[in-house]
Amino acid sequence: MGLTQARIAIDAMGGDYAPAEVVSGAIRAAAELGVEILLVGDPEAIRASTPHPENLSQVEIVPAEGTIEMHEEPLSALRRKPQASINVAMELVKQGRADAVVSAGHSGAAMASSLLRLGRIKGIDRPAIGAVFPTVMADKSVLILDVGANVDCRPKFLEQFAVMGTVYSQYVLGVQEPRVGLLNIGEEPSKGNDLALRVHQALSDNPAVPFVGNAEGRDILSGDFDVVVCDGFVGNVLLKFAEAVGESILQILREELPQGVRGKLGTLVLKNNLRRIKQRVDHAEHGGGLLLGVAGIVVISHGSSQAPSIFNAVRLAKEAVDNRVLERIRAQYQKVAAPATDGE
Amino acid sequence: MGLTQARIAIDAMGGDYAPAEVVSGAIRAAAELGVEILLVGDPEAIRASTPHPENLSQVEIVPAEGTIEMHEEPLSALRRKPQASINVAMELVKQGRADAVVSAGHSGAAMASSLLRLGRIKGIDRPAIGAVFPTVMADKSVLILDVGANVDCRPKFLEQFAVMGTVYSQYVLGVQEPRVGLLNIGEEPSKGNDLALRVHQALSDNPAVPFVGNAEGRDILSGDFDVVVCDGFVGNVLLKFAEAVGESILQILREELPQGVRGKLGTLVLKNNLRRIKQRVDHAEHGGGLLLGVAGIVVISHGSSQAPSIFNAVRLAKEAVDNRVLERIRAQYQKVAAPATDGE
Repeated sequence: MGLTQARIAIDAMGGDYAPAEVVSGAIRAAAELGVEILLVGDPEAIRASTPHPENLSQVEIVPAEGTIEMHEEPLSALRRKPQASINVAMELVKQGRADAVVSAGHSGAAMASSLLRLGRIKGIDRPAIGAVFPTVMADKSVLILDVGANVDCRPKFLEQFAVMGTVYSQYVLGVQEPRVGLLNIGEEPSKGNDLALRVHQALSDNPAVPFVGNAEGRDILSGDFDVVVCDGFVGNVLLKFAEAVGESILQILREELPQGVRGKLGTLVLKNNLRRIKQRVDHAEHGGGLLLGVAGIVVISHGSSQAPSIFNAVRLAKEAVDNRVLERIRAQYQKVAAPATDGE
Repeated sequence: MGLTQARIAIDAMGGDYAPAEVVSGAIRAAAELGVEILLVGDPEAIRASTPHPENLSQVEIVPAEGTIEMHEEPLSALRRKPQASINVAMELVKQGRADAVVSAGHSGAAMASSLLRLGRIKGIDRPAIGAVFPTVMADKSVLILDVGANVDCRPKFLEQFAVMGTVYSQYVLGVQEPRVGLLNIGEEPSKGNDLALRVHQALSDNPAVPFVGNAEGRDILSGDFDVVVCDGFVGNVLLKFAEAVGESILQILREELPQGVRGKLGTLVLKNNLRRIKQRVDHAEHGGGLLLGVAGIVVISHGSSQAPSIFNAVRLAKEAVDNRVLERIRAQYQKVAAPATDGE
């Protein structure tokens, strides 16, 4: 889509496997996705990280100094290092030189930097991190938000997450009539903790949210919901649990399947089928979470991202840019969420 | 263990498949586990539910009238139906005629009935439901509590859950030195929502809890923790999510493995290995949750329990009785949690 290529700024220094795996995923994305890549980081480290420096001609390197380490407190570190790679990447979006940022570094720092440099969309109190989970239906996914940006939430935050999630589901995930659920411990409107009870009421009253009711833990992956909202504490626990369960099951398969002679034979015969199962279960296929509510497209990748995850994160950013998700959230949100005033 | 047989009262009328599956599981438990079974419910319905009524000679039938339906508000329904099966089962424990109750019926009603008839252990503000999850280590499980009894928690509730979980892990699950974790969104003590921050401090200060720090979502099934405490909202979402993920993965296996000729051949060859995987993943192997903090042994089984789950729930109840978990929690809790007073 679009006549111009999406321009994606990538924090080359962020993540457990930076810069090598980030650079590798970025080069592949430049070659295959039809995007312009701006690699932000230490130019020497970037060049030294790849066995094929000639491929760097496909990307633009934007110099930055230092990175925010995982143990650092985000706000003070960002102020102490104004030229850190994540800050420079955000600045590229602010200046209109890039359309989106991808980072596998300190997620708190990415959020704080985006808030400081880009600010929030008007009408949004708190940005949320949305994560796309696979469901049991092979071609259907579900957007969960918030998965970690806000650990203590007020009801209106979750209401805003629902509005943003609806837009994202429609315009990026291509769901014509998204079904929005509230994560809760029972189907009935009377179930839940204090926050859930109040959010249930707010979502029921909000005409901009196609709210279909409570989603229990068992419903998340059923395919019955396109968007599920929750506070960032529950969402983060769920996200990390889901990732680990996927890996655990793959580990159990690896342990149990090849047991015995029949096991070894059967596993060999099933090689292709097992690879397909891994694709459906493995989070690396999904790329990362989108930070919704800041005035820019920001994809937050997993700290353990290797090249395939970075590649998928760039694809996610490209889809958000091409589908103008930012403008649509802004427009849709203002349209639906602005309080009616006299004379308008 | 023990010279006398554990006497287990089973709510024959509770659960989606009651009474047939409950009766079937109960009869098998009576035959195989060396326990006395008291089947509580409508005698005619119980007799009509089994194709082998002669097997009922192995159990005692205790008449009850009616049951609490899933849609009913527990407290008012329990008062309106004093002779409901769950009430009669609790009364058997109160009168010393049974040592434990197993129910797959309305879990809120089971909890309320136990509180009304049996009361709480002294020093415990709120009972919690503990659920035992499998971990990636084949012979190691983890106790999560609370998984649904208390959706809005104060810090001292979670502190009490940790004390009870420690005792349960030691004396029922046989873990000599349990490692207790607090479910949270990061490893550092500074991470978390308001509740988690306060509980972290309380657990760090409590000498009765072998607290090793925060457990993230990814750590729950790692085998690094023996007990993980959380509020009942998060715990319930996790429990239902975990059950569904296990089922989803089995479904994906069933869909993907037999694809193609090689798939069909390989799946046939792997039949035994796949059965072992199902046992490690499937929640039906685990039986149910234990209600901790009430003055009696109460096992709350899944509403969808069929005979194997009921059988496993009876085994869980028997283990709790044989290992005197109630007395040990009571003694341990009083010993460790009672505030020191002058002159003692």
